Order: sequence, then C-alpha cells, then structure tokens
Amino acid sequence: MDKKDYQTVAANGKAEPEKEIPKDGSICGFDSLHSLLQASLSPQNFQEVSRLLLGLNCGRALETITLPEPAKALSSKHDFDFQAFSFQAEKESLREPHIVRVGIIQNSIALPTTTPLLDQKSAIFQKLTPIIEAAGISGVNVLCLQEAWMMPFAFCTREKKWCEFAEPVDGESTQFLQDFARKYNMVIISPILERDVKHGETLWNTAVIIGNHGNVIGKHRKNHIPRVGDFNESTYYMEGNTGHPVFETAYGKIAVNICYGRHHPLNWLAFGLNGAEIVFNPSATVGELSEPMWPIEARNAAIANSYFVCSINRVGTEIFPNPFTSGDGKPQHSDFGHFYGSSHISAPDASCTPSLSRHKDGLMISDMDLNLCRQLKDKWGFRMTARYEMYSDLLAHYLKPDFEPQVLSDPLLHKN
Amino acid sequence: MDKKDYQTVAANGKAEPEKEIPKDGSICGFDSLHSLLQASLSPQNFQEVSRLLLGLNCGRALETITLPEPAKALSSKHDFDFQAFSFQAEKESLREPHIVRVGIIQNSIALPTTTPLLDQKSAIFQKLTPIIEAAGISGVNVLCLQEAWMMPFAFCTREKKWCEFAEPVDGESTQFLQDFARKYNMVIISPILERDVKHGETLWNTAVIIGNHGNVIGKHRKNHIPRVGDFNESTYYMEGNTGHPVFETAYGKIAVNICYGRHHPLNWLAFGLNGAEIVFNPSATVGELSEPMWPIEARNAAIANSYFVCSINRVGTEIFPNPFTSGDGKPQHSDFGHFYGSSHISAPDASCTPSLSRHKDGLMISDMDLNLCRQLKDKWGFRMTARYEMYSDLLAHYLKPDFEPQVLSDPLLHKN
Repeated sequence: MDKKDYQTVAANGKAEPEKEIPKDGSICGFDSLHSLLQASLSPQNFQEVSRLLLGLNCGRALETITLPEPAKALSSKHDFDFQAFSFQAEKESLREPHIVRVGIIQNSIALPTTTPLLDQKSAIFQKLTPIIEAAGISGVNVLCLQEAWMMPFAFCTREKKWCEFAEPVDGESTQFLQDFARKYNMVIISPILERDVKHGETLWNTAVIIGNHGNVIGKHRKNHIPRVGDFNESTYYMEGNTGHPVFETAYGKIAVNICYGRHHPLNWLAFGLNGAEIVFNPSATVGELSEPMWPIEARNAAIANSYFVCSINRVGTEIFPNPFTSGDGKPQHSDFGHFYGSSHISAPDASCTPSLSRHKDGLMISDMDLNLCRQLKDKWGFRMTARYEMYSDLLAHYLKPDFEPQVLSDPLLHKN
Repeated sequence: MDKKDYQTVAANGKAEPEKEIPKDGSICGFDSLHSLLQASLSPQNFQEVSRLLLGLNCGRALETITLPEPAKALSSKHDFDFQAFSFQAEKESLREPHIVRVGIIQNSIALPTTTPLLDQKSAIFQKLTPIIEAAGISGVNVLCLQEAWMMPFAFCTREKKWCEFAEPVDGESTQFLQDFARKYNMVIISPILERDVKHGETLWNTAVIIGNHGNVIGKHRKNHIPRVGDFNESTYYMEGNTGHPVFETAYGKIAVNICYGRHHPLNWLAFGLNGAEIVFNPSATVGELSEPMWPIEARNAAIANSYFVCSINRVGTEIFPNPFTSGDGKPQHSDFGHFYGSSHISAPDASCTPSLSRHKDGLMISDMDLNLCRQLKDKWGFRMTARYEMYSDLLAHYLKPDFEPQVLSDPLLHKN
C-alpha cells in the first residue's frame, strides 16, 4: 500500500482518500493554522499576527534551526513534516547555557486495524524508524513519542482483544527504542499500554523513560483517566500510582503528563513542584472534542510552572472492524474522529512554536536553554507569591464530607 | 481637551498623538487581532481561523447581540468600542436556561496625572458615566470595571502620594456606582484601592461587590501581589486576607480574581471549588510584559474550572510627573508602557469572544447561560477525575522545610 494511504485506512484495508479532510471541518486546504496565515497575510501582518499568537514579544524571535541534509532527505523520502526552532534565553554570568535539543514525533498507524496485531505493531516500528533516525541524525538529546504509540488508539471500541497490545516495561517496544537510545546517545520517552505482570496482569497507560545509555530509568503512569464520549479509557486501565516523578537525565529534569492529565492544572503543578524543566504531554485527541483547548492548556502550563511543555498528538483517522456507539443519539461509527496532530512546543516565557501538520506524520525539533526556566521564576516570582499554605488548607478542607464552600449570599436575595 | 487626547496625555497636559502607536509594536493599523484577520482573510479562511482561535467548535456559533439604539448612540457619541455576543448552551429537560447578561468596561484615565487628584477622580466618574449608562440601557445584569478604575495605575512610581486615592469600601466610588446599581437593577463589581480605616489605615487592592439593590454584598482582596518590573505593587499593599469568596447574587454566583492572581492556577481553582459560575479578572497590564499570556490564562481557567471568565484590562499610556526606573539598565521613564485593553470573555467550553480594542475605551456585553458550567462538568468530568487528595498531600508535604522532591535520577548519570 502506498504510504499516503496509511493516514486513513478502512478496516477492510481499502484507502479512503476522501476522508483526508477531517470530519471536524477543513482547514481550507492548508496543513496548519500557521501555514494558512502565512499564505494569506501580508508579510508585515503575518509578522504581527505571529507575534501575538506565538507570544514572540520583546523583539525575541523564534529562530529556525538548519537541519542536516540526511535528516531532511529522510523527511522527503518518507513524507513526514519536519520543523525545527530554537528558543532564546538570556546569557547568564554565573551559569553556562544549558541547551537541550528536544524532538517530538506524531504519526498515524501503519496498517489497517483488521490485520494481525503483530503485523500492525511491526509496521509501526518500521514506519517510525526513519523518523527516529532523522531525530538521531539531527542530534536530538531527548525524544518523545505519542501516547500508546505502538498500537491503534482502540480504547473507543471497549473491546478487550486490543489488550493484547499491552507490554511490560521491558517489552519489545522498549527494546526497539533502546537500540536508538544507545546509537544516538538519546533519552527516549516511550508511552505504551503497559501490562504489569507482577501485579496480576494489570494494565496501565504508562510512559517508559529510557536513558541515553539505553537503560530504563523508570516509568510514569497516567494520573487522570478520561470518561468522556468515546474516551471511556477506564474500561482498560485506572488512575496511575506512580505520583509525579521527575526524571533526572543526562540532559535535564523531565516529566510526563499523559494526555487527559493536561486538563488538570494540579497535575502540571505537581511536576513543577518536583522540579521538572521539560514536561512532555503525549496525547491522542480528536478535533471535535478538544481542538479549541489544545493550544491553550499546554502554553498555560508552561507559563504557570516556568518550564517547557512539549505537546504531542497522533495523526489520522483510525477505523475499527466493529462499529461502536458513544450514545448521545449519534449513529454507530467505526472511528473516533480525526486525530489532528498539531504537535508543538511551549516555553515558560509564553512563546511557542508553530504546530506540526494536522494531517501528516511529523518530527518537531527544538533547542531550548533550560536556564530560561529559572530566569522566568526570578522574573515573575510565581513560586514566591503562590501562597501554597492557603491552598493546602483549602484542599484539605474541601476533601471533608462536611465541606461548606465560602459563599457570601446577598442578604436581599430573596426579598422584593 | 478633545476626548481623543485622553488616551495618551503627557504629564504637562499636552497630547502626544504619536504615542497612539503602542511601544510594544503596532498592530498594523488595526484595533485588534480579530479585526486585522477579518480585514485580511477571505471569508472562508476567516471563518476557519476564527473557529480555531475562538474555539467555536461543534458547529457552535458565537452570535452577536442586537443592542438598543440609545446605547449604540452613547457609544458613537463618546467613542467607545461596543461589542456584544451570546454564548450557546444545550437546552436541558429539568432546568430552565439561566441566562445572565454580563458587561465589562475598559477605559483610559481622563485627565493628566498632574491635575489635582480630586479632579482626576471626578473626570473618571464623568467619563465612565455614559459607558455604565450604555450597559444599564442594554440590560446588563452584572457589570465589572477594571482594576483600580478610580485612579491612574500609579504603583509604578513608588511614590506614596497616590495613596490619597484610596477609599473605604463604602467610599465615594462605591456610592457613585450604587446609584447605577439601583437605577438599572444591576450587580456592579468595583475594583478600588481600599483604605481599611478600622485596621490602622491599611491599604488593600480590593473588589467591592454591589448588589442589584445598591447594597454592598461584600469585598474581596487581591490574593497574589506582583513584584515584577514596574509592578512592585507590594510598595502599597500586601496579599489579601479574604480567602476565595464566591458572592451569591440575584443573577448567579460570581467571584473576582484580581489581576496578577490570573497567573496562579490555584487561585482560579479555589474560586471554582467554592462554586463560582463567573469569575471576573479586572487587570492592569502592559504589552511588553504580558500580552502573549493574556489570551491563554483566562481561557485555560475557564476550561479547567468549568466557569465563565471575564478579562478586563485598562487602556492607554499613563504618564507620571516624576520619572522612575525599573532597573535592568533601562533609562528612566515616565510611564509604565501601553495598557493594551483587549478585554474579552471566555466560556467553559473553550470558546471565547473576540477582544475589545487595544487602544480605545470599550464595553463588552455577553449573554451566557450559566447551565453551561454544569454541562461541561458533566461532559468532561474534571472534578470527578481530579484526585484532590493526592494534591492536598503533596502541598502539605511541599510546605515542610525538609521537603524532598520526587526525583528519579538516572543511575548512569555520572558514569562514562
């Protein structure tokens, strides 16, 4: 099958090219909001709109990075979007710059969901190989894949057969990535469907953190599980039990806020309190449900917690063999909707990169000086002014069954 | 003086029209991002860009409201921006719609800061009168003014003479607004510089909540005080001691997150836990510092807490008699920078209105069905999935002097 057809493959394996236009509305023939604006606006207007939309204030520019030719060749050959930017920080007197090159990958599945599961997984490995190679060749230090990258996002079906995709932390997906970690001296974050064999074959939605020597540093399990429409994920796994770990790697302190956890400001906060400098948000989310929130929540987290946020969403429409319903009187359907990609990176100074394509696989690379995190803490003082004791008290109070909210009623409310 | 000159008046009273272009970069001759895009894009592209930027998903449109002619006449005569929109909610079977008409006002000061303080305040009262009248005539139920609306935002100067502007909660600003509250059966939120006479003449940054019968329902004092650049506000007042009250008014449960508190997700959360349906964010903030954050934080708070957020920022450049410095090797200066207006309203479904002008006084009106708050809680389940006990524990732990963050170090970190 031609690789272009991989984006939207019907359950029977026949390509459905008319589905290339996502159900949630077209983007007028453009790949992303940014490319539409660039093509439509005068250079001066585009610059001003970019300044406001991407938060490029104070004359600060988002510089593009020149990428190695062999990496660009892989992008052309395998038709994935490939963008790279560099965030700026102030030069300090007492610390050297701490520049890290981060990569994030978004991708569609590789084979129809009707093919044997083993083939599906192998095909994803094969499809990802040139993209990971491009990251490695480009000198990426920390790479993150999308949520449950080694399988279709089958949780909408509520069918248990997809549980077969689950793997232990040291399973074949980890092994596949460990080779790249060693080859390119690269930390890799691998979000998988985990099977916890030692605890009675329990399933978790887990990110495995592979160190730059190929060792498994640890794991984090998704803290907040959605029960929204087709995203009834608690059919498969429950709330994580690993807290909010920050992983101290060769390149910096990183953490992972998996998918739905991005809607929870406290989850973002906790990674910040534990000292994260970069938080990855590997996701799987569709247009009709979440697209208006997508550019907001990650940037807000970066601002509020003075760290970088890397947002990753899968791409394409995944069609399943058996139709399912999500209620609300909608007809039964065989797909979740269009995963709109649009992966991007946000900085603590409120700036962010443009987004990767809404339709194609992609690799986004960004250089970031981690010194910017502390610089923003010093500048804005959010930690210093946070009054955590007030909120610790409030939460403790709120949790009590007899909690009474602090409400002041107008005494004239029920008078004439 | 012609009213147009009020926007930027020099300390000596001479208008400086060339300063109409804000220091933080022009918007290419347009009043707002939205108007620039509308003028520059094809109708189809503008519609799609609006869908993505304003979060108008699921085929949901932001409808404009037809305003009464006498109100429009006031807007023309007094040259203030006047926009009105209506947010949509689902019709429920067991509850009637709970539609509230909200108004927010942004304005520049009215006289040079060198004129007698009493004249300055009276001139602001006079300038606001037609705008408040327009709100009243338009049937606004709940109206909110900008932070410290009754004075220039003089806190950059660090001069104590401006403290004279401070008033007790039942002072003349409150009295001025009580008349309108009674006349139009309107709840009014009045953010002032408060003088707490009973507690030793202490100053606070306070919002007074005036009920629709003209009674003072209560007050809220700003919880988080900035120490950022020229915003060294703790020269004048300290962190508030009123908690996170929600005011139950004739039209709904409202709360006030004053200015810098918008950077604190916990502050937004606390108003939500106490049951707020609309949270007002009266602010005073300038382009160079905060403009990239402005469209992000309010919308994120609305999404995360399933309530409406009304963001208000003052307008214009205020020039003070004595130059001051904010360090960083910048030359001394007589103004803070350009207050960029851009007041707007965000809904819990991630949609939002366009913004008011970056340059002109303005009144934004919006109809909102408060049923949307619970609808979004039911749809997304953020409260249900929030795991507050985990965060209550973490905050209590974090506050201890011997707190150790949850960090997992790569054991190979310091090996070759």
